[in-house]
Amino acid sequence: MGKQFIKDYQVTYYDCDAKSRMKLSTLLNVVIYFSGIQSEDLNRSDEYVHSLGVTWVVTNHEIEIKRLPKKKEKIVVITEAKSYNRYFCYRDFTVQTADGEELVVVHSTFALMDIESRKMASVTEEFLAPYESEKTKKINRPLNISLEKVDYERDYPVRFSELDVNHHVNNAKYIDWLLDVLGYDFLIAHTPRKLSMRYVREIEEGTIVKSTAQVEGLETKHQISVDGVLHTEALIEWRRENEI
Amino acid sequence: MGKQFIKDYQVTYYDCDAKSRMKLSTLLNVVIYFSGIQSEDLNRSDEYVHSLGVTWVVTNHEIEIKRLPKKKEKIVVITEAKSYNRYFCYRDFTVQTADGEELVVVHSTFALMDIESRKMASVTEEFLAPYESEKTKKINRPLNISLEKVDYERDYPVRFSELDVNHHVNNAKYIDWLLDVLGYDFLIAHTPRKLSMRYVREIEEGTIVKSTAQVEGLETKHQISVDGVLHTEALIEWRRENEI
Repeated sequence: MGKQFIKDYQVTYYDCDAKSRMKLSTLLNVVIYFSGIQSEDLNRSDEYVHSLGVTWVVTNHEIEIKRLPKKKEKIVVITEAKSYNRYFCYRDFTVQTADGEELVVVHSTFALMDIESRKMASVTEEFLAPYESEKTKKINRPLNISLEKVDYERDYPVRFSELDVNHHVNNAKYIDWLLDVLGYDFLIAHTPRKLSMRYVREIEEGTIVKSTAQVEGLETKHQISVDGVLHTEALIEWRRENEI
Repeated sequence: MGKQFIKDYQVTYYDCDAKSRMKLSTLLNVVIYFSGIQSEDLNRSDEYVHSLGVTWVVTNHEIEIKRLPKKKEKIVVITEAKSYNRYFCYRDFTVQTADGEELVVVHSTFALMDIESRKMASVTEEFLAPYESEKTKKINRPLNISLEKVDYERDYPVRFSELDVNHHVNNAKYIDWLLDVLGYDFLIAHTPRKLSMRYVREIEEGTIVKSTAQVEGLETKHQISVDGVLHTEALIEWRRENEI
């Protein structure tokens, strides 16, 4: 077990969607921000990490949703860097109500990338020591999606406001594209129960992103690509709103 | 002078653009959120306001920018409902550094709209009393833009993630469309010094928004329309990044 880090957050109106619930993309931004604060507390700030010639990249998220936080709700985010092997670090986030009711769990996989070569860098024990993570031999099975048919498709030209400080698209943003392609009627009538996504490549300024999806009952498969090259894939399980 | 309300805020990485500065749209979300907290403190919550059959709408913002807050910067937001007349309420926001250096000032105009008839409702002294605003006869001159030519134009289909709890587009979002149409090269090389905008009509789900702009040196004129009908207009004065 890693060292736990706990932060409170109150959901604002602009964090919320048309259903007065916290957007999944915003929830991901908030939890990742908190993991950054833990890292700073442990003398592993982004500035320090970059000074070693490497940078963190997220490779996977698996998000289990019992209920999305509501407008004005006070939530508690608990995170820990759980375990690691030579190339991957596994971090969990738990989003709870103030009374300790579990709402959302996020299992995230991070890797270190060499800034110059853009290749994966190995993770040293000395570097990770402050997080008190467990060493593990287990490598999580990567997501592998194939769409047999395209039920929904839409182009999203990258906007200036979607770029982060590295001039790539903020990767929480991808979730808005994954969901949006399904359209208003589907999104009003359904809410995600589980979302698994794998980041394959970063997305840069000036590109047109294509979001495609296949619907099979309460499961949707997704790909995000640029000029026919896969950048992200995802699998979402849904529940109907009237079954909550 | 109205009753002041003061709140601290720390700028997150996901609040920032490619230049590591707080997005103007996010800044507007944050300050408007704080005015809502003041209203709750004064027993004028949205729920109370809606129970009277009316709702607040923003009609204008005038934003003066000395410098945009930076990533991780701790800022202080000071707001007060300054003055009012029969139909309009004028509220100011000042964004400062922790040391009291003024960064951004926002002059906003609010009105009350009847929820049923969608017409402007008059503002009563009893309703406004807790804010301690001054009564004024002055009505701020409304912005009135006309584009002689269109230098930039782009369509923005409204996304599900852009809708707020009222199923309209969150009006801070409009700023991203105003800016984005100018393109990456312009936005990297310039930063806004002053932005005036007027909201004419709300934007709903399922619409395609057209953002158009005319550039005259360091001034840009903007219109946001749906099916040829004007929804918002704006005037932006810029400074070159290398002149900051």
